[in-house]
Amino acid sequence: MIIVMEPRASEEQIQKVAGKLETLGFKIVFNRGEVMTVLAAIGDKRLIDPASLASMEGVREVKLIQEPYKLAGRESKAEDSVIELGNGVKIGGNEPPVVISGPCSVESDIEGLLQVAYAAKEAGARVLRGGAFKPRTSPYDFQGMEEEGLKYLGQARDKTGLLIATEVMDTPEIPLVGEYADILQVGARNMQNYKLLKALGSTNKPIILKRGPAASIREFLLAAEYILYAGNPNVILCERGIKGLDSHYTRNILDIAAIPVIKKYSHLPVIADPSHATGRRYLIEPMSKAALAAGAHGLMIEVHHDPDNASSDGAQSLNIEQFKDLMGQL
Amino acid sequence: MIIVMEPRASEEQIQKVAGKLETLGFKIVFNRGEVMTVLAAIGDKRLIDPASLASMEGVREVKLIQEPYKLAGRESKAEDSVIELGNGVKIGGNEPPVVISGPCSVESDIEGLLQVAYAAKEAGARVLRGGAFKPRTSPYDFQGMEEEGLKYLGQARDKTGLLIATEVMDTPEIPLVGEYADILQVGARNMQNYKLLKALGSTNKPIILKRGPAASIREFLLAAEYILYAGNPNVILCERGIKGLDSHYTRNILDIAAIPVIKKYSHLPVIADPSHATGRRYLIEPMSKAALAAGAHGLMIEVHHDPDNASSDGAQSLNIEQFKDLMGQL
Amino acid sequence: MIIVMEPRASEEQIQKVAGKLETLGFKIVFNRGEVMTVLAAIGDKRLIDPASLASMEGVREVKLIQEPYKLAGRESKAEDSVIELGNGVKIGGNEPPVVISGPCSVESDIEGLLQVAYAAKEAGARVLRGGAFKPRTSPYDFQGMEEEGLKYLGQARDKTGLLIATEVMDTPEIPLVGEYADILQVGARNMQNYKLLKALGSTNKPIILKRGPAASIREFLLAAEYILYAGNPNVILCERGIKGLDSHYTRNILDIAAIPVIKKYSHLPVIADPSHATGRRYLIEPMSKAALAAGAHGLMIEVHHDPDNASSDGAQSLNIEQFKDLMGQL
Amino acid sequence: MIIVMEPRASEEQIQKVAGKLETLGFKIVFNRGEVMTVLAAIGDKRLIDPASLASMEGVREVKLIQEPYKLAGRESKAEDSVIELGNGVKIGGNEPPVVISGPCSVESDIEGLLQVAYAAKEAGARVLRGGAFKPRTSPYDFQGMEEEGLKYLGQARDKTGLLIATEVMDTPEIPLVGEYADILQVGARNMQNYKLLKALGSTNKPIILKRGPAASIREFLLAAEYILYAGNPNVILCERGIKGLDSHYTRNILDIAAIPVIKKYSHLPVIADPSHATGRRYLIEPMSKAALAAGAHGLMIEVHHDPDNASSDGAQSLNIEQFKDLMGQL
Repeated sequence: MIIVMEPRASEEQIQKVAGKLETLGFKIVFNRGEVMTVLAAIGDKRLIDPASLASMEGVREVKLIQEPYKLAGRESKAEDSVIELGNGVKIGGNEPPVVISGPCSVESDIEGLLQVAYAAKEAGARVLRGGAFKPRTSPYDFQGMEEEGLKYLGQARDKTGLLIATEVMDTPEIPLVGEYADILQVGARNMQNYKLLKALGSTNKPIILKRGPAASIREFLLAAEYILYAGNPNVILCERGIKGLDSHYTRNILDIAAIPVIKKYSHLPVIADPSHATGRRYLIEPMSKAALAAGAHGLMIEVHHDPDNASSDGAQSLNIEQFKDLMGQL
Repeated sequence: MIIVMEPRASEEQIQKVAGKLETLGFKIVFNRGEVMTVLAAIGDKRLIDPASLASMEGVREVKLIQEPYKLAGRESKAEDSVIELGNGVKIGGNEPPVVISGPCSVESDIEGLLQVAYAAKEAGARVLRGGAFKPRTSPYDFQGMEEEGLKYLGQARDKTGLLIATEVMDTPEIPLVGEYADILQVGARNMQNYKLLKALGSTNKPIILKRGPAASIREFLLAAEYILYAGNPNVILCERGIKGLDSHYTRNILDIAAIPVIKKYSHLPVIADPSHATGRRYLIEPMSKAALAAGAHGLMIEVHHDPDNASSDGAQSLNIEQFKDLMGQL
Repeated sequence: MIIVMEPRASEEQIQKVAGKLETLGFKIVFNRGEVMTVLAAIGDKRLIDPASLASMEGVREVKLIQEPYKLAGRESKAEDSVIELGNGVKIGGNEPPVVISGPCSVESDIEGLLQVAYAAKEAGARVLRGGAFKPRTSPYDFQGMEEEGLKYLGQARDKTGLLIATEVMDTPEIPLVGEYADILQVGARNMQNYKLLKALGSTNKPIILKRGPAASIREFLLAAEYILYAGNPNVILCERGIKGLDSHYTRNILDIAAIPVIKKYSHLPVIADPSHATGRRYLIEPMSKAALAAGAHGLMIEVHHDPDNASSDGAQSLNIEQFKDLMGQL
Repeated sequence: MIIVMEPRASEEQIQKVAGKLETLGFKIVFNRGEVMTVLAAIGDKRLIDPASLASMEGVREVKLIQEPYKLAGRESKAEDSVIELGNGVKIGGNEPPVVISGPCSVESDIEGLLQVAYAAKEAGARVLRGGAFKPRTSPYDFQGMEEEGLKYLGQARDKTGLLIATEVMDTPEIPLVGEYADILQVGARNMQNYKLLKALGSTNKPIILKRGPAASIREFLLAAEYILYAGNPNVILCERGIKGLDSHYTRNILDIAAIPVIKKYSHLPVIADPSHATGRRYLIEPMSKAALAAGAHGLMIEVHHDPDNASSDGAQSLNIEQFKDLMGQL
């Protein structure tokens, strides 16, 4: 950690900061410049909260040198994590990209869901996604079929042999959702719902963690760290677009560079969701190709048997033919 | 609602969209231009999800005309809401600004908490804040004293007569936190934790809802709408800074204009939190003044008896003398 | 154009707005809802400034229906523009991707420049880039070799037969830079330097227009429109990253989706610059692949014969071996 | 400067970086941790471009310790700069706030301009603003009356005794604009037009430098540094709103905190422009008050004699009565 002192910091203030760091077990190197003094605190003490130093008199700024995540970082585990999803499907490392597809929401039409599921399987998808509990910006939008939706997903699993991924929104729901799902998903707006992350860390299910709509990559990896630290190593990171300065042509900005950045700093698998990121059907194909070209370990793609009548996010769903065509190209 | 059709949309596509809207109870006006056709769907049907139209073939864009929040908006309630916080303290409308202050986290030092509480009361604050459950970006940062912290807050209330505001992070915690707190707070990172919002809507406590770090004002009002729609009209909105392009000099951008914007569109009280927004002690005074000058109904200000040794966010806390001085100026 | 009136707008205000639009040649359709009235102004009148309506009493909002650019849009020219760069090299449409490479700045070492130029040519690049006039954030950073640098570029052209692309920063420089360069570049920070855009519109050189660091796609296309409207149809758009919420791991966010978006709305060629966007050498390869996978018509890649000693932006430059390796993979 | 080496950096790489810094005149302190080595380069060498180090093998990151601006910073000049605008009007330090007002654009109606000018003067404004050269996002929007507009401003000056502030967009225009204007303005979109900044640094006119729409405070101060470094110390910084995640309710985010931040780090006067920032008439009053409460040295406010028929930005202009009312309140 680097502590930059104010140009006018007194020697007493400098010593007070140094003393505090020493009692925390750091070795201190003084870098005294003509204008200001910089303290380097040496020691692998990631557990210290830098804000507790930043508040001291005479401190201008505290700069982290090491990344604050430990278990998610390459330094604790150099080789790629490969996660078993079930049915022999693996994700991460050099495994072939895993495609997760299905409708945004599970709807009352079980036949439609099965139609998508069979088609997805045939086209090469390994996991069926579908929301039973839906986080929606407005309370007046469709909130999901809840337990009924989970049962439909269970039927689709039984009939097709696909794995099931679905979102869990609240700690008390985890056991119920876990009965039906092979993979639990944390939605973007819950990325920093720490109680949920901790509770998911106590399960042994693979977790798809979606990046928050304005989360930095560091915050994203720290959210994964919550799950890992609570005991569950099976975290799959999902880049799904971040808020940008302009939402006229695309809903969010799919931060493709986050894929190779995460692969450099973390051993966890990383996938991309071009459907939610762009919110536009015509962008799914080029952005799917771009994500794989940049090294994504998988894709999450919305497919609906009748997008014009989807109860949520139809504008970004492919129909079955479009999905087959895309899978052919990938 | 305005539905802009693609320049090359066929008459059949146009009629299909119009038909769907008519079955939903809208009256349709066709605006046929030389290049494209625009449908105006007339009717106060806020409950329709615009995305379900955007997905139809031939649709370029769907534009909302009315704001999607109903209960939070001025159209459903023209006059300002004034919320009773307890002990005769009211917030909103023309009531004098309410100052909420206290440490970021409740710590093991109950004497320190009481010292802040007495000083805050003396200086004119009406509510004591302090976190017992703390959402922290890293799992290695101090996570709060939990129930023990709530008990300390309870003691501070008993001794000083101040009202207590504290954060609740997860639905199962609501009853416990509600035993000790007069006002429940939803943290910025939980602004779109819809299960939590709905559950808080079933209580009758005043709720301080903090704006998410990258939430638009519309998303913020829709989050309030969740609480109102679930039955609790006592929502206080708190502007606490949004993420910006630059976090070198301030942690977030305090969006002061959000205060008069919210007052125009909503009847709910709105306060500002300059401490979290700026993350810098020297900015609290000018930003507190600015927020009040722009019409804020209250302020939330961090005060610690010993900021240098705070377990969280000391860098943005005033000490007791600084707080008294600020209150004198306001 | 859609004009949304305030819920409390008077009939007189509504008629005044309608009257103004009619005198401007629009046909007006009234969409009268229960809560508010919406006027649709029909007619292809892109030349009207919507702000002049937004200021009228009783107007809540003015929404554009048609894109405000005319010459840059697909509606005025459906097929892709293919631009002749010289020496038989073409860019756009179905032409093979054009690689533009070279050092960020031209430096005093002409031998180094030639070394890069020969290697770039051998590896398949068709255009040599290099800055002689350099826009730098700080006045203390290297400002470029100016005319001397142009002469070096001229020598490199003569010796290798590569085309030359270089930046022009100010209107009075255009004739001089035009003597040496085959392609003139407008830097991101000058994207809205309208005098420069107009002046470049009076030349017949191909122009590479870089997207401003926080420009929306619409602003970007309107900047291109300035050049087109002034008479020069040879504009190549360059996505080079936009400012995001986080610059810890990458300098900017390369907005890959902008490539297919621009291709949908505009006929102009679009290329990507992964070097400036990411500012990190290890990201150039995955982002180059991603840009091409998403449909880019070309790439601009920084290559330096000795990146460790580059006078600007070495951290994002490939060395010659790395560049050859990348070209092999693409 | 702090140079953080990669965890796997070799001793040879570390020595190479240290050697380069030593030849540049820095003293090096090695901070060797268990995981990585951090070099502190001591010496007041602001002239070095950190990017030239970041490119070296084995370097993870280069962190600046000192602010890169020199002349604009408090370290070179501790006391506030007070700038003489002419006619005895001063801005900065403890001088009373200076109000600059007038229409967005000078229009063909000279009587309207004079009406605004007389009213502004009577209400207490000291400077008349008005654009003769207008930077507009679209080439189809009104581009200003150019020299004719300057002449009108000159007449307004002669009749009212107000000082004149107007924008200059391009280096060749400086002499002409300088003939008519007391204060030259650099528009937000030209904040990083370095040729223009340098040329203005060679004049002796006060310069109002507007913050770029997405400029960080550091970039803003570095743009001022260009003018100062070229010899003109009379720079007034103008906060005018930055792009944010949401432009539904306000055009930009007025970054009020930038005012006290700039006052801490720089001695230059800083003013605010609530009109351009918000783009909404009803926000001008609260945001003007907020800016002054936060310590602004002045305000720039758009006033038009007939906002409904303004040729640009009428929606954010006050009419004469509204302006008088606001001035009364301030």
